[in-house]
Amino acid sequence: MVQLNSDDLGRLLLAVGILLLVARLLGELAQRIGQPGILGELLTGILLGPSILGALAPTAHDYLFPAAGPSVLALDGLANVGVVLFLLVAGMEVNLSTIWRQGRSALSVSLSGIVIPFAIGFVAGWLAPGLLGCSDQADRLVFALFLATTLSISALPVIARTLMDLNLYRSDLGMIIIAAAIFDDLAGWIIFAVILGMMGASNHGLSPNSAVFVTLLYTLGMLTAGRYLVHRVLPWIQAKTSWPGGVLAFALSLAVFGAAFTEGIVVHAVFGSVIVGVVIGDSSHVREQTRMTISQFVSFVFAPLFFASIGLKVNVIANFEPLLVLLVFGLSCSGKIIGCWIGGRLGGMSKREACAVGFGMNARGVMGIILGLLALQNGVISESMFVAIVVMSVATSMIAGPAMRLTLRLKKRRRLADYLSSKTFAGWLRTTDRRDAIETLCRVAANGGLAYETVQRAVLAREKTMPTGIGNGVAIPHARIEGLQRPILALGLSAAGIDFDAPDGEPSHIVFLILCPLNDDGAQLQILADIARTFSSPTARQEILRVNTYTELLATLRSALTDHH
Amino acid sequence: MVQLNSDDLGRLLLAVGILLLVARLLGELAQRIGQPGILGELLTGILLGPSILGALAPTAHDYLFPAAGPSVLALDGLANVGVVLFLLVAGMEVNLSTIWRQGRSALSVSLSGIVIPFAIGFVAGWLAPGLLGCSDQADRLVFALFLATTLSISALPVIARTLMDLNLYRSDLGMIIIAAAIFDDLAGWIIFAVILGMMGASNHGLSPNSAVFVTLLYTLGMLTAGRYLVHRVLPWIQAKTSWPGGVLAFALSLAVFGAAFTEGIVVHAVFGSVIVGVVIGDSSHVREQTRMTISQFVSFVFAPLFFASIGLKVNVIANFEPLLVLLVFGLSCSGKIIGCWIGGRLGGMSKREACAVGFGMNARGVMGIILGLLALQNGVISESMFVAIVVMSVATSMIAGPAMRLTLRLKKRRRLADYLSSKTFAGWLRTTDRRDAIETLCRVAANGGLAYETVQRAVLAREKTMPTGIGNGVAIPHARIEGLQRPILALGLSAAGIDFDAPDGEPSHIVFLILCPLNDDGAQLQILADIARTFSSPTARQEILRVNTYTELLATLRSALTDHH
Repeated sequence: MVQLNSDDLGRLLLAVGILLLVARLLGELAQRIGQPGILGELLTGILLGPSILGALAPTAHDYLFPAAGPSVLALDGLANVGVVLFLLVAGMEVNLSTIWRQGRSALSVSLSGIVIPFAIGFVAGWLAPGLLGCSDQADRLVFALFLATTLSISALPVIARTLMDLNLYRSDLGMIIIAAAIFDDLAGWIIFAVILGMMGASNHGLSPNSAVFVTLLYTLGMLTAGRYLVHRVLPWIQAKTSWPGGVLAFALSLAVFGAAFTEGIVVHAVFGSVIVGVVIGDSSHVREQTRMTISQFVSFVFAPLFFASIGLKVNVIANFEPLLVLLVFGLSCSGKIIGCWIGGRLGGMSKREACAVGFGMNARGVMGIILGLLALQNGVISESMFVAIVVMSVATSMIAGPAMRLTLRLKKRRRLADYLSSKTFAGWLRTTDRRDAIETLCRVAANGGLAYETVQRAVLAREKTMPTGIGNGVAIPHARIEGLQRPILALGLSAAGIDFDAPDGEPSHIVFLILCPLNDDGAQLQILADIARTFSSPTARQEILRVNTYTELLATLRSALTDHH
Repeated sequence: MVQLNSDDLGRLLLAVGILLLVARLLGELAQRIGQPGILGELLTGILLGPSILGALAPTAHDYLFPAAGPSVLALDGLANVGVVLFLLVAGMEVNLSTIWRQGRSALSVSLSGIVIPFAIGFVAGWLAPGLLGCSDQADRLVFALFLATTLSISALPVIARTLMDLNLYRSDLGMIIIAAAIFDDLAGWIIFAVILGMMGASNHGLSPNSAVFVTLLYTLGMLTAGRYLVHRVLPWIQAKTSWPGGVLAFALSLAVFGAAFTEGIVVHAVFGSVIVGVVIGDSSHVREQTRMTISQFVSFVFAPLFFASIGLKVNVIANFEPLLVLLVFGLSCSGKIIGCWIGGRLGGMSKREACAVGFGMNARGVMGIILGLLALQNGVISESMFVAIVVMSVATSMIAGPAMRLTLRLKKRRRLADYLSSKTFAGWLRTTDRRDAIETLCRVAANGGLAYETVQRAVLAREKTMPTGIGNGVAIPHARIEGLQRPILALGLSAAGIDFDAPDGEPSHIVFLILCPLNDDGAQLQILADIARTFSSPTARQEILRVNTYTELLATLRSALTDHH
């Protein structure tokens, strides 16, 4: 059996390490400016690929990512396994039963949100294939169908995350959007699989009709019989095999088999694994921790390798055509937003809501990029069109959140850690007296420009009317302060414990001082709920009592908050 | 950039899926008969490789694992990334400070446990290279050093797991063995890295001396400056980046960089990542959940791909030479057991303990196999010798546990689920009366052949002297029964709750009946502790109250027990 030699292995490892590290760094930077992490991962490929590194330092580029050779093949293999697993995870987020629970609105949003952009895309692609980056050898019908599909899909993972950020995920509006997105996502995949079958079939001796037939059969079979079997077999696996290895191996190998099957029938591998993901994710027998383990490893290790590898394959800068980008972007937004708006209005939504739904469903995210890549690899579109689709997919995802927030006039959701700063972390309190402790925290909190006396008087007055120990060793002295613009949180820790008259009689070791504006719109309640939820876990309480610096505090709060979501 | 075509991608995915699935199946079977899971993973390669599938169904074999081609290169890349990550995890299990805490005994065990097998291996390898499978073109000195190293290493991961199984991990004896194994493991790796440097250096233009020098410099630098930096940087990463993505990407890319570096200086990649693992694992800032996520994904996805791929490369059956296998096995056991025995006696252990330490340290496990593979790839040993080393490594690991148990006269540790059976699971109780519930459970428990009246009388008498509700909705009626050979556990669930007079006043929903032999040697206490620990978690309590069948019960118990270890 042929093997990688030492030189190739060294290159491969170096390339993987650099891709992982840079993708994470740029991903973090993207999130820092409020953008999805995948933007950073895509930029990684552009930075390290022919677009930038290849132009500036061709020797380094050619060493890491040579045009051919065993190390590049192995890297491509890793990226391919990465996208297959990524779609397993994306599929697992789909909850089929959600669709049925959301009656009329969801149905009309999703149907109108597919039909209108599909029609616009098909007509545009049919009438002006040259203008829209149809590749020379591609069939006009296939190209028009491809463009129609790309404009009609919605990227469920991006939409779900946007709704969570906006605190809308569990709201009625949120569930309608999710249900419609699931439907559009699945329908888009199936249509696309059919198109792929039509395109690729001729190369493999399978007639287009039979490729389409097998694709539909696979989808139907998996969603019915496959779903039933998986739901039956999962408890058995969890009972009889080592945990979580058995479930992990089962889920991953099923995804890979599905992918190999659809790749074999000339529909791309990703279609097979997304369907397996839907089937597995739908079973109530999959434990939360199994989902987490798969999704964390895939999101932070495999997916970045795939997204970064896109930029390695295409020179994004040389193929950037502003006019084409604008055209694709305009077509996408108008088709999807108008379609969903009409659907929403028909489904009985207000204008404002229907508009927000349109912006939400407009996010193409990763799905748009993957579809574009497949079309590029199958010779349907030009490299410039691929770049335009990538830009459109990223841009629609980036504006989805802010646009929904604006239309619905929502405030951005803030977490506990956002209210704290290194200045308002008082560290370990030396006193065991309640009043002393409150005054120390008031001094720290007022430091930013408030009058200490005002703060101290208000907090002590509040404490007098009602003691603020809430049990579990946590106390939350608080007050509303006139003229304050945004909430301030201060934190002090006590090893000995301070008596805050808690209902469980325990002394308080964790003391949060909460100052809120007079016209507080629920921020105080939200902070309170966050504190209570975070420190209901004994682990979180123990961990916070081990921190010494503000950095360690942030680390603890972040992981404690993540643990509970 | 060159890419895998559709056919290659299909083969790759199919091969990965089959390897994962078969490895897990055989791994489970191996564990079922009390053997380490890695045995099954190794057998997977033998089954699917040239040894068996290649001989029986050459067409299928050549389709999945062709002798050359892009899909095999990509698979080899995956297996290599797999072994690099596996050694990251293995390194993370090393706890450097343990060595220092175990004074004289650990030091004499580890020194004597290295020096004596090393001497035996070196002399044997020097005197009879031909007999011991030295390859024709290999240097005699290098071969003798390789054999010496292979006989001196100990496989920390195998030893740690064996001690946990025997419930000895936290005992004095256990800590001495662990400390000595860490030392031998690290020393073995460093010696082997030096030998690899000597072997490979000439091919790369690096002089042997400078390869050795760079290797030692890397090790020292990482264990001092690298360790300091990682410990400093980790809290910052956890505070400033998304969790757990930041830490995951940091750990994995550092491991891959270390691997690329040592591969670059002609010492194999695995050495670089095992040292990175030691450095990262040693930092108290790495959270338990991050360790879990990495270790679960690596152990159940990447490691099986690597171990299975070994059998794909070598025809184990054709290269099995019984004499050589026996010789290597005999040399290994005698050297390590005698060495550790002498060390243990010098360190003040009893004969029995010293003997147990010898059997424990004798496990070569995965480390022996990886060393052998590297020697094979570098042309130091023949394929037959490699097979002999694989057999020796597996066999020494397999006998370590049973031999220690016999020497120390220990009982095998049993878990809660081992005492239950489908016959003693009473399901949902209809009654809310304590006596009724106890009698139902007694009937179920006595079903196997005990006299129901005896059991019922003993349990009710015990219940009278002391109510057995232990709070959290759990009750544990119990009794000792004359003539009983092994403990019996019965379980009944109650939706309404039954009053067992628990200290927290809550009714009991989970009722375990425990019957123990008269001369019970701690089994009852252990079962009690297991029950208390398992159901201290609210999640476990909620989940068990959702089960309907015995299979679902087992699944819940298994994952609940895993969650707490």
